[in-house]
Amino acid sequence: MIVTVTLNPALDVTYRVAELVPHGTHRVSAVGMRPGGKGLNVAGVLHALGEPVLATGLLGGAAGARVTGLLAADAVPAAFVPIAAETRSTVTVADGVDATGFWEPGPAVARAEWEAFVAHFRGLLGDADVVALCGSLPPGVPIDAYARLVRLAAAGGVPSVLDTSGEALRHGLAAGPDLVKPNAAELRALLTPAGAAGREVDDAAHALACGARAVVVSRGPDGLLALTRDEAWRGVPPERLTGNPTGAGDACVAALCRGLRDRTPWPELLADAVALSAAAVAAPLAGAVDPETYRRLLPAVRVSAA
Amino acid sequence: MIVTVTLNPALDVTYRVAELVPHGTHRVSAVGMRPGGKGLNVAGVLHALGEPVLATGLLGGAAGARVTGLLAADAVPAAFVPIAAETRSTVTVADGVDATGFWEPGPAVARAEWEAFVAHFRGLLGDADVVALCGSLPPGVPIDAYARLVRLAAAGGVPSVLDTSGEALRHGLAAGPDLVKPNAAELRALLTPAGAAGREVDDAAHALACGARAVVVSRGPDGLLALTRDEAWRGVPPERLTGNPTGAGDACVAALCRGLRDRTPWPELLADAVALSAAAVAAPLAGAVDPETYRRLLPAVRVSAA
Repeated sequence: MIVTVTLNPALDVTYRVAELVPHGTHRVSAVGMRPGGKGLNVAGVLHALGEPVLATGLLGGAAGARVTGLLAADAVPAAFVPIAAETRSTVTVADGVDATGFWEPGPAVARAEWEAFVAHFRGLLGDADVVALCGSLPPGVPIDAYARLVRLAAAGGVPSVLDTSGEALRHGLAAGPDLVKPNAAELRALLTPAGAAGREVDDAAHALACGARAVVVSRGPDGLLALTRDEAWRGVPPERLTGNPTGAGDACVAALCRGLRDRTPWPELLADAVALSAAAVAAPLAGAVDPETYRRLLPAVRVSAA
Repeated sequence: MIVTVTLNPALDVTYRVAELVPHGTHRVSAVGMRPGGKGLNVAGVLHALGEPVLATGLLGGAAGARVTGLLAADAVPAAFVPIAAETRSTVTVADGVDATGFWEPGPAVARAEWEAFVAHFRGLLGDADVVALCGSLPPGVPIDAYARLVRLAAAGGVPSVLDTSGEALRHGLAAGPDLVKPNAAELRALLTPAGAAGREVDDAAHALACGARAVVVSRGPDGLLALTRDEAWRGVPPERLTGNPTGAGDACVAALCRGLRDRTPWPELLADAVALSAAAVAAPLAGAVDPETYRRLLPAVRVSAA
């Protein structure tokens, strides 16, 4: 199975209102709730594809219990480690024009809770084909958390995909993950001096030099760039899709995980990741893909040596 | 003990942000949570005054569990009937300028859940000195809910204070509650034809005619007006207080409940209610009163025959 790790998940709450008026009082006409967080979206996509998957990470309090309930309602297999603090919520207020977001800070994680997670993660590795390490770290979790998990996975013979940013990515790279998937902005922020704009291939090569075995850069509607020590590939979608880009990166990670598990050759793997990302844009909710878009685009993705 | 009923409580969530920007994304710097709902505020004030009190009503889901936890943390005695649906949350976004509110709709209450509450309420009457029936009705609870509870209380020899508005108030009045406490706007909306502006005393007299035994009209900084079949009194605070007026009406209900329990004469009762309302304005949170303001104002409230 593929194990997805989300250390800082969220309860994503959406409020529909007629019009957002600052300093007014709004009656919310509809309330939506979804499990939130990159690793949960990856698990949702893999589950929708029929791939064996298990979502894990840290959940706490009433919001955490609700995330657990929502995952169960979607039949996504999950085994989270409990924490005392409350899992964060994100509130998105949607009016007729656009969305306004409010992001709570993440919960404070105790040292013992983090250690309990590490032990839990170690226990899952025996059944894991690939692990995906996704998203930000909540307060209290050490900044080199992903490096530790990457090393544990490697020691257990399990390849890892790391999808995070900033210092968590920088520290994680040092442990040599099998694959990192920054988007172009994350990669540039991490690897080039402020203001310097290098070519993406150069930046990705720099990430390789920092320790990753392979780098897949997500370039939004321009597709994906994959770089290893021996190969470089570009995958470009056959058409531009309009929709909700929020979960595209997570769908990409889902495709990369099963490709890594199946040792799929890069051209085929990249085509799958491009088509699945596009199918996520075509689906209204993060963590879902539009199957028809996926089927239609998969044979039409153009992959070429970079 | 005084039993306060809140059929549509809320989890009141406050988000602090630097500046509310419509259609932007905001990192919330601090998250506050409080039990919300008129009857919970009344219970909080009575508990702070050292009066025996029990908060009851309907609570459900994760938000309901959190309200229960917050009441327990404040040591406010509570015995709520569980419902399957999720208790509503209210989110208030506070920036440097003012507050922006988002009010979720109330939960759908099943007929059996409402009947379970009625049975629970009946069981509490044996130990109740007064019942306070507070706030709006959630979907699924019959519009004449308060009339039914008023009649049950009366049959048990327990006087009732009704603090609600609109149709719930209109129907509740028919059962002859011992006291209703509309504010001036609620009273006018209920009792006079649209556009007609009668004198408050006339409006209150109309409420008496509709069935209440006594009417206390809260008039914001202008104090309180009390009307029974035999008496009419005005209570006016000695000074204008600035602060948070949200919980003033609930503090007033708290004072009225204990006055009704103790059969306090109207002049004294009204002075207490005026001082306690003002002390709520001086406290930063609804459901709390500032003891120093209460002690200072109580002897200075001016009460006169209206």
